[in-house]
This record gives sequence, C-alpha cells and structure tokens, in this order.
Amino acid sequence: MTIRIFGDSISGNCLKVKFVCDLLRIAYQWEEVDILKGESRTAAFLATNPAGQVPVVLLSDGRALAQSNAIMLYLAEGSSLIPGDAFARAKMVEWLFWEQYSHEPYIAVARFQVMYQQKPVTELEPRLIERGNAALARLQTALRGRTFLVGSELTLADISLVAYTRMAHQGGFDLAAYEDVQAWVRRVESTLGLAAIA
Amino acid sequence: MTIRIFGDSISGNCLKVKFVCDLLRIAYQWEEVDILKGESRTAAFLATNPAGQVPVVLLSDGRALAQSNAIMLYLAEGSSLIPGDAFARAKMVEWLFWEQYSHEPYIAVARFQVMYQQKPVTELEPRLIERGNAALARLQTALRGRTFLVGSELTLADISLVAYTRMAHQGGFDLAAYEDVQAWVRRVESTLGLAAIA
Repeated sequence: MTIRIFGDSISGNCLKVKFVCDLLRIAYQWEEVDILKGESRTAAFLATNPAGQVPVVLLSDGRALAQSNAIMLYLAEGSSLIPGDAFARAKMVEWLFWEQYSHEPYIAVARFQVMYQQKPVTELEPRLIERGNAALARLQTALRGRTFLVGSELTLADISLVAYTRMAHQGGFDLAAYEDVQAWVRRVESTLGLAAIA
Repeated sequence: MTIRIFGDSISGNCLKVKFVCDLLRIAYQWEEVDILKGESRTAAFLATNPAGQVPVVLLSDGRALAQSNAIMLYLAEGSSLIPGDAFARAKMVEWLFWEQYSHEPYIAVARFQVMYQQKPVTELEPRLIERGNAALARLQTALRGRTFLVGSELTLADISLVAYTRMAHQGGFDLAAYEDVQAWVRRVESTLGLAAIA
C-alpha cells in the first residue's frame, strides 16, 4: 500500500511533497483537498490534521504526518537530498525554518491574495511586499556564485524554497531584479523536470 | 574552545538554545545581543546572520548556524531529546515547524508588543489573539492525557513550544483556560530546572 498525500495542487507547500516523491520515485496516491472550498477545515480532515493545514501524508499504516518540510525530511531520509555531513544538514534545516518564517508568509501569502482572492497587487499590505522582497534579496545574496543553496548538490533547501519562489511573480514580485535567484529557479525546475510557470 | 550563543535573554527563541545546552551540559559562552537597541541589525551582526535574527550560534571553528529550532536539532543530535524512532522524530519535527508557523508569530509577537512596545492588550490586532488562542487550544487537545508532546520523554518539541507558551500570559493570554497546557508548562519547566515566570 502506498502513501497518500492530501494536498491542494495550487499550494506550493503541497507540491514540495510531490516533487520529493517524484524525484525519489516514492509511490503515492494524491488526494486533492480544495482549500478554497474549505475542505481542509472539515471535521474529517481535522481528525487527520488538527492544525487544519495541507499537506498531510498518511503512511501505509495509517499514521499521519503534517508540515511540508517535516514530511520532506521524513520521506527523503537517507537520500542525497539530505547532506550526510552534520553541519551541511544543519544549514539545510536552517533554510527550511527560514522558509516557513521569513519567506512563505510573504511570498506565498501575497500570491494567494492576488491569485485566489483577486486582490490587486497595488492593494497588498506594504509589509507583504517589503518582507517578500527582503526574502528574495537574501536569496540573491546567498545564491551569488552558487549552484544550489547548500553544498554543490540539490537538497531539500532548494525544493522548499523554490516551491513559492517560482510563483513569486504571481504575487507581483519581479524576479528579474534578482537574477541569481531567477537562474537558480530555472536550474532547480530543470532538475525536478518542471516547466516554468507563466 | 566552546560555542558562542549570540542571543537576547528576553527572547524565547534564544532561550531554547540555552535550555538545550544547559540540559545536555554543552559548554557555551553567551553573547548578549540587545534586539531592542537594534544590535541584531548592525553590519557586524548581519555578517554572521544575514537574516538579522537571533539566536545565532558560532561553533568552535567559527561557522555560524541560525534558526532556533535548527540549532537545537544540531546540538541535540544523538541525545535523548531527539527520538530514535524515525516516525516519532518526524512528529517532533512537525511540532517544530508548527511552532514557528502557527504559534510563535502570535504568542511571541503579542507578548513582544505588550512587554516591549507598551501596547495595551486591548489594542492588539484581533488576529494575534484569535490565532494565539487557536494555537493554545491545539496544544490543549494534544496534551490531554499526555506527559510530553511526543512519546513519553521530554523532546525538542516540548522545549521549543514551552519557550513562549510559558510567557503567553505576558501577552494577555490566560493559560488557566488551558489546564493541560498549564500543567505541561510546569512539568517541562521543572525538568529544565526553571522557575515559573510571574
């Protein structure tokens, strides 16, 4: 029996888990949960994840695991997506926490409001735009002269951070202003076999 | 040479790292960084952590690691604070990500505004109070009938979540309404050798 991924295809957090499974050839069944229709807030869903958030993975024995980055770390254990060196692994984990605290709440939220709540970019809270750009600027500095975020190979840090960075323009951010970020997005997409999002 | 922890003593995120070091008897030198005076935004500090956030740990070889939960995971590697079982470890990591995304941005931010920006509790954004209470309610449900968050022993999940939960009243939250959370805070504090915060 394969694992089941409960996720919404419009969510970068959910796609992270799909990308890892596809790359590592982990068999899964995708169960679409429409967050716009409130399907992550039903009693049935909350019984699986009391936090009311997607993605959630049900393992073959029925146990549930939530939080995109925690799921990726679990599924990729022992693979090349997690560095063997303890310090490199810690730096990768540092990026994962930074992504959820200082990147996703601005880049993903701006994009959600523009794409799915029809808010004009000009009416976004200035804080979203400022902090989103600060996150992109930090990525730009980190990626200058580098191929991937940690070490010389693709790791979960790249998958986690590319998930919403590749969609940033949908929230009004201009990646052309961050050229090393843009090149890295194309590189990670290519490694994952993904087409750029128009 | 011991590690150096750059942190502000008023910050729960920084204290997490101190708690782990004290418990595991890891030698460290505490370097106080006054965030209220902008000391985490100086050029010298940004050279160590480009995210401009505390805590940061400098290892004995000078390499820097940021993000409280990432630092704890690195320092506690191989200790009883990280479950040996892969699924239990994943659930612990799930709590760490939930803490940074769904708990700290409300519980810690409300407390910061009340304690350090002199904002009356009645003038806090309603969103902070609602989501802070939602986080406490989720902890209450998770802790009913349990001693610690994951398995039967103290793990990093407890240390991470207790850091600001034990200060929640300073942001206007009433832990008496969440009695299993309150009992768990006392239990974790006792395990860590900490006195309750008045």
